[in-house]
Amino acid sequence: IAKEVAKLLEMKAQLGEDEGKHKFVLKTPKGTRDYGPKQMAIRERAFSAIISSFKRHGAEVIDTPVFELKETLTGKYGEDSKLIYDLKDQGGELLSLRYDLTVPFARYLAMNKITNIKRYHIAKVYRRDNPAMTRGRYREFYQCDFDIAGQFDPMIPDAECLKIVHEILSDLQLGDFVIKVNDRRILDGMFAVCGVPDSKFRTICSSVDKLDKVPWEEVRSEMVGEKGLSPEAADRIGEYVQLHGGLDLIERLLQDPQLSQNKLAKEGLEDMKLLFEYLTLFGITGKISFDLSLARGLDYYTGVIFEAVLLQQENEHVEEPVSVGSVAGGGRYDGLVGMFDPKGRKVPCVGVSIGIERIFSILEQRLEASEEKIRTTETQVLVASAQKKLLEERLKLISELWDAGIKAEMLYKKNPKLLNQLQYCEDTGIPLVAIVGEQELKDGVVKLRIVATREEVNVRRESLVEEIRIRTNQC
Amino acid sequence: IAKEVAKLLEMKAQLGEDEGKHKFVLKTPKGTRDYGPKQMAIRERAFSAIISSFKRHGAEVIDTPVFELKETLTGKYGEDSKLIYDLKDQGGELLSLRYDLTVPFARYLAMNKITNIKRYHIAKVYRRDNPAMTRGRYREFYQCDFDIAGQFDPMIPDAECLKIVHEILSDLQLGDFVIKVNDRRILDGMFAVCGVPDSKFRTICSSVDKLDKVPWEEVRSEMVGEKGLSPEAADRIGEYVQLHGGLDLIERLLQDPQLSQNKLAKEGLEDMKLLFEYLTLFGITGKISFDLSLARGLDYYTGVIFEAVLLQQENEHVEEPVSVGSVAGGGRYDGLVGMFDPKGRKVPCVGVSIGIERIFSILEQRLEASEEKIRTTETQVLVASAQKKLLEERLKLISELWDAGIKAEMLYKKNPKLLNQLQYCEDTGIPLVAIVGEQELKDGVVKLRIVATREEVNVRRESLVEEIRIRTNQC
Repeated sequence: IAKEVAKLLEMKAQLGEDEGKHKFVLKTPKGTRDYGPKQMAIRERAFSAIISSFKRHGAEVIDTPVFELKETLTGKYGEDSKLIYDLKDQGGELLSLRYDLTVPFARYLAMNKITNIKRYHIAKVYRRDNPAMTRGRYREFYQCDFDIAGQFDPMIPDAECLKIVHEILSDLQLGDFVIKVNDRRILDGMFAVCGVPDSKFRTICSSVDKLDKVPWEEVRSEMVGEKGLSPEAADRIGEYVQLHGGLDLIERLLQDPQLSQNKLAKEGLEDMKLLFEYLTLFGITGKISFDLSLARGLDYYTGVIFEAVLLQQENEHVEEPVSVGSVAGGGRYDGLVGMFDPKGRKVPCVGVSIGIERIFSILEQRLEASEEKIRTTETQVLVASAQKKLLEERLKLISELWDAGIKAEMLYKKNPKLLNQLQYCEDTGIPLVAIVGEQELKDGVVKLRIVATREEVNVRRESLVEEIRIRTNQC
Repeated sequence: IAKEVAKLLEMKAQLGEDEGKHKFVLKTPKGTRDYGPKQMAIRERAFSAIISSFKRHGAEVIDTPVFELKETLTGKYGEDSKLIYDLKDQGGELLSLRYDLTVPFARYLAMNKITNIKRYHIAKVYRRDNPAMTRGRYREFYQCDFDIAGQFDPMIPDAECLKIVHEILSDLQLGDFVIKVNDRRILDGMFAVCGVPDSKFRTICSSVDKLDKVPWEEVRSEMVGEKGLSPEAADRIGEYVQLHGGLDLIERLLQDPQLSQNKLAKEGLEDMKLLFEYLTLFGITGKISFDLSLARGLDYYTGVIFEAVLLQQENEHVEEPVSVGSVAGGGRYDGLVGMFDPKGRKVPCVGVSIGIERIFSILEQRLEASEEKIRTTETQVLVASAQKKLLEERLKLISELWDAGIKAEMLYKKNPKLLNQLQYCEDTGIPLVAIVGEQELKDGVVKLRIVATREEVNVRRESLVEEIRIRTNQC
């Protein structure tokens, strides 16, 4: 309906060009949305869980501009480059909106010659993709990235990234999930032993990447039909990509007569084994699946790759379950920083990106279905009056409260009715009302009303701040 | 120097086009900057003071997209429209980056038919202006906006906006400041009684707006020479714009034989009087100056306008004082929402925008000049080992700590030297080290070292979490 309305409004606007000044369309750009106070409250909850985890792991935080020089983004995203938003050439530099936070991070490292950092970055990125907003797919969306850059012993930072994904998805209580893990070196080794020519590694990898959405038969026919792979090679790939498991599968593949002969695959499998040992110490292998069908789209990965998928929705209360797929992904990209360094000096990196919009869709639907009333302010007390002509007294009192750090509001009316003032508290969840009246002023007290119980107590003016703090537990 | 280097790099890049793949310029776009962990820590401090104040006044929070339909921004900014960043036409809608947060807010209100809200919004805005980065003037910069929309009794929300500016500038301890206040209706009334033709109100207003940067003589010659105002009218304006003061000045102008005859001016002066009464109740008139030279550039203001200016720098420790001007500004814009409503329905609004980048420049310079070491992580404990071959034990322990909510780090090395681990704590300010060694493992204890005092105590493993919490005071 919203779409139809927008269309009609647009048509109307086009027809009515000469009608006057109100001809514009009242909407946000395609694939974007506003966040109202309720949505912001939900978003803040999700951010808070994510930031807590990032900080728990000792990450610093950085920020970069929303746009980069166009050339900074060129050649980093493979086929997806067509989705980049360019700015209009208005003279000066050619600019593009950032497509992710990883390439700006690599540019930042190279530019500042940083070879060692653990940082997070939470910001919006931009993709001119086909939006599917009910499923949380937007053209403007947040990414929450945590990355570890530096030359370290193998798989220790990689294991920590997976631990973080596990922590965040558990904290947010999004239901059951699995984190699929693979390694670009294992994929490349597999392609080699299956008879894929070197030149076709990346394009065949793209085909494999589609396996989470389309069945093997379709992927196979794309490989053979469109991409000219021999049917035998495709079938051999088909056998491998069905495999998923844990340490046992890794051991089996290490014994695989072909794979074990391939240097890349062997390196990848041995690191995968080490990774699983560390994940065992972290106690999280129950949610980890070594999955040979996981490929990931982006060009820049060089080692471990992973993707977290929600397995089912707790949709008891939800009429139409949100179909969300991947909610987090990441991997190792040891070559990206070197692409920015004039001398090609490499800084190995591994990182994870949390897809907050999909998580947000779930939390939003869940909250809508529940009875929970979410507060959108933190106001502790409403300063009210019982009679007329007390505006000055309300202003004096609220100023005292603000200066003492109390979160306080009042109605912007000269003579508001007491009932309206109490109703405002009910509507917005303000727990206390500080009522000034003529008698109270004479007695040097304020009447403090507890909204929930309707209890009223007279509090001496000099004790009011303390009393509000105690009653709202915010000292 | 940085500029010269960038220029040279650019020249080198242009010359070196055929040299190979590393031909790009390694920089952020003109007028933008990265925020490293230290800058982020300072930024977070400033944000925290600002958000605290906004929440203390009961504001909700919203967010809007970074770009709007181009037509949403058209006709709102007067001459400044030329500074808007447009996106490239890649098919579909024509988009522009937001120029401020006020116009998107008005669009949001009209689109959602909201007639009553108190909200804040902190986000980046974009202006293709001439950057002056050392003075905190960027092309990408944060605005921190607080606005009150709705039909209320006069001057109550307006007074609250000024109270908020006063709170924030006091909290941030930026030194002495003054908040200049004026009213568009007083300006327009003044122009009328001085003999400025109606058609020249806006352009003469722009000239007056320059008075904080250039002397009256220059402004006068612009009015007379470029804008064709009669010398007599200019001289009469010249007398008014020198005036500034408090309630006394308002009273005097209310008696002014010409001004008091002008309906607009009279309305404005009476509201200004009311505003000063409320500000007296808030106890902040000491920092408020009714200033007839304050004009503000933007087209959309309709009533009270204001601007906060820092009076001097505490530059005892600062070699080169930052010359900052206005750090906050705002006013009443009762017509803007109506421009978006198909039926022109008005929603009166008043709001304030805090210019965080200028404030940030000051805080950054002050911190650099001081001896204060700023921490960029919150890590409570480093998990370390005293001997080799204890990686697994470190991983097990750190996982326990993370799961208990402790902020913990470890070095990503199989066998790090104890000295390096202790050095890492010194460098990053981590207060505690939890050391696992063979003897400790046997005894079921962990050696907890307090970095500052070098004191070491053995703590039973099951009490470790509690002990860390107590010692870092983060329960």
